[in-house]
Amino acid sequence: MKHFLEISQLNQFEIESLIQRALDFKAGKTIPSYPRQAVAALFYENSTRTRISFELAAGQLSMPFIDVNPETSSESKGETIQDTLLTLNTMGIGLFVVRHQQNNLPGMLAEELAHKDIHIINAGDGCHAHPSQALLDMITIIEQKPRLSELKVVIVGDILHSRVAGSLQMMFKTLGVAELKLVSPTIWQPEHVQFGSTSTNLSESLEGADVVICLRVQKERIAKSEHLDLQEYQKHYMLNNEHLKKARPDVMIMHPGPVNRGIEISAELVDSQQSFILKQVQNGVFARMAVFDALIQSNYN
Amino acid sequence: MKHFLEISQLNQFEIESLIQRALDFKAGKTIPSYPRQAVAALFYENSTRTRISFELAAGQLSMPFIDVNPETSSESKGETIQDTLLTLNTMGIGLFVVRHQQNNLPGMLAEELAHKDIHIINAGDGCHAHPSQALLDMITIIEQKPRLSELKVVIVGDILHSRVAGSLQMMFKTLGVAELKLVSPTIWQPEHVQFGSTSTNLSESLEGADVVICLRVQKERIAKSEHLDLQEYQKHYMLNNEHLKKARPDVMIMHPGPVNRGIEISAELVDSQQSFILKQVQNGVFARMAVFDALIQSNYN
Amino acid sequence: MKHFLEISQLNQFEIESLIQRALDFKAGKTIPSYPRQAVAALFYENSTRTRISFELAAGQLSMPFIDVNPETSSESKGETIQDTLLTLNTMGIGLFVVRHQQNNLPGMLAEELAHKDIHIINAGDGCHAHPSQALLDMITIIEQKPRLSELKVVIVGDILHSRVAGSLQMMFKTLGVAELKLVSPTIWQPEHVQFGSTSTNLSESLEGADVVICLRVQKERIAKSEHLDLQEYQKHYMLNNEHLKKARPDVMIMHPGPVNRGIEISAELVDSQQSFILKQVQNGVFARMAVFDALIQSNYN
Repeated sequence: MKHFLEISQLNQFEIESLIQRALDFKAGKTIPSYPRQAVAALFYENSTRTRISFELAAGQLSMPFIDVNPETSSESKGETIQDTLLTLNTMGIGLFVVRHQQNNLPGMLAEELAHKDIHIINAGDGCHAHPSQALLDMITIIEQKPRLSELKVVIVGDILHSRVAGSLQMMFKTLGVAELKLVSPTIWQPEHVQFGSTSTNLSESLEGADVVICLRVQKERIAKSEHLDLQEYQKHYMLNNEHLKKARPDVMIMHPGPVNRGIEISAELVDSQQSFILKQVQNGVFARMAVFDALIQSNYN
Repeated sequence: MKHFLEISQLNQFEIESLIQRALDFKAGKTIPSYPRQAVAALFYENSTRTRISFELAAGQLSMPFIDVNPETSSESKGETIQDTLLTLNTMGIGLFVVRHQQNNLPGMLAEELAHKDIHIINAGDGCHAHPSQALLDMITIIEQKPRLSELKVVIVGDILHSRVAGSLQMMFKTLGVAELKLVSPTIWQPEHVQFGSTSTNLSESLEGADVVICLRVQKERIAKSEHLDLQEYQKHYMLNNEHLKKARPDVMIMHPGPVNRGIEISAELVDSQQSFILKQVQNGVFARMAVFDALIQSNYN
Repeated sequence: MKHFLEISQLNQFEIESLIQRALDFKAGKTIPSYPRQAVAALFYENSTRTRISFELAAGQLSMPFIDVNPETSSESKGETIQDTLLTLNTMGIGLFVVRHQQNNLPGMLAEELAHKDIHIINAGDGCHAHPSQALLDMITIIEQKPRLSELKVVIVGDILHSRVAGSLQMMFKTLGVAELKLVSPTIWQPEHVQFGSTSTNLSESLEGADVVICLRVQKERIAKSEHLDLQEYQKHYMLNNEHLKKARPDVMIMHPGPVNRGIEISAELVDSQQSFILKQVQNGVFARMAVFDALIQSNYN
């Protein structure tokens, strides 16, 4: 594993190995120290929680962390992202955490810089993939419900545009969960899915569900397109106690955050015992430590 | 001491203990190392000197320091400050340095998150409190003039809106200085004071003073309100050699900084032997080290 | 050496000693550790590569690195740069990396704060000097062609305004290269030069050249002045294979970066075997480590 670009690049063994590595760190296993392995964060889209999660993960591994603020960077002087990475790599930085609005940009960087000792970590690209989010979600599920082949999972929200939904489909397919339902209003239904089946009916889909993952509603996007009425969304797709009656009693409620309380999930459910949202956040640091560690270890293999 | 919110929460013993801790660090006492105690800075109002002072204090104690830039944070996505803190705490951050324009916001956060292992440090909230400034001011005074019960202190400037003046009143009250004069133009006189007496006459008030603390004139605020003429302020309230003739010969001149030279203090006095402004800055790092150390130690008590 | 302001302050021995120090670090010599020597970066002009190069150099030496973002700093509250430095110095920061649009501003700071334990490092001031760039350029040349007294060097571009060209002239003069040609369009020709001779003809000037250094075209400046046509510049001054026929077969191509591909240098030459642009970037970190190390060592001499 030279890069961490999307879940589809990984086989079952590799994913399980990452999960195990993360859970070992969480359980207190000795943490390696990499003071000579510097990591640079290039976030072309803002994100407090993801950036800080990677920063803390790097800190746990004693890796120097350089926050390249692309807005003020030399790219405003016309330099390409490839040249920026090459320059930083030449300075001694080997790992790059990249978030970008363009689909597959991290993948293209990895290809163009294939001959270099550069590890690219995709921290979310356009509507394409967000593999570290899928990894931390899977860790959170497996901690509670390790018998994946018996699980029914429901994802609800903007399936069409969500990079989280994309990575999760590949995750659940590769690890083999029993059933995946992708629930959304008609306008957010994808034409093709990589795994699972689609539905527009949340209540029905929750029948017997073990896990329900609510996606974030991008209010800014809705405002622009005016295709969707926020109140309509709340009425039909906001997870509430009424919906949950059909799910299993120990159903897990998850969300990649930040939550719009009262839009994707009713306020009371966000803070309920069934909510694993903060567990996801906690596992995010261990998941990213596992990714860094696996990439650095790959240098020696 | 779980939080450091305002001086009024502390009794005389607790304040003296913080001062002693800071002076011990300054004297070269062994500095503890807390590489697992991460601190996040959330500055909703900018401040180079205060933020960097906290950053250096954290660095001295080997604490990871995360500068959360709230402008670019997920709060622009609608997340509440409470949720941001909860998220960061879940990632492993236990201490939060918060500066905010709203009175008592750090106190409200402390209350709402009371059941969590979260330490809140108030780095200045609205017109309410700035306790680490009052602490470093007190350290600076006590180094020079340890017999507090004989001291006369004068504070001059915008007593009404200054969070520094608020915290200092409580500081001087709790530690028992002999006399406190709060000098300001009429429009900046508070209706009630926590300690001391008010005056509009600087020269008279300086009679026998041991310490004079000039507050910063917020030029932006004056410009907006147009209630105060800057030249009028200079004429009557800018500290100069003429005024000082009434004070004690060894009077200390202090200012929380940054100074507007020639507005609050005459340019020559800023750099005079009687000026302790840079001593305040120096003691600020030790004061904040003491605060971090005391809060972390409270975990074990 | 208390400050690192411009190459002209250094004699041949001091420059050679810095170069040797950098090459020793590159060769794997034990790196000193300075956890109590904090450095602050004050970049009044943006620069990803220079700032990060200094940050990584500080990190290699275990020096705490504080990125003071001057835009959000207290200077917007009217504080002078001198007072900012004095304040930070009082907090315990001894080294200051300063980039500023004003000629000689770092030098003036060094003079005004001469009585303080403050080391100023000039990271580029106006059209005046950029000494760490000249140092890393020289290191890159000496690695390939150590017999300086036989070298012919060509610098091409905006000789008039380039701070890199200024520092390089002093560098080549002090170390004694055989010949220096400064090539530019007429409007960018300086009236006086510190070393070398000027020309407007690139092809002719390249006759027998060992090294050619292309300067960055500041597109924003051209747009404003409208004195120069970018296409005219490309036609006559963009380095290409045709030009290089006159130079020595092993001519080194250099550029301070970031390169405008197809403006200063043809795209194919940027990535050619003769290009040492990435070597320059790599040596930049070692050059800055040498500067930090020399300044810190000067405290003990």
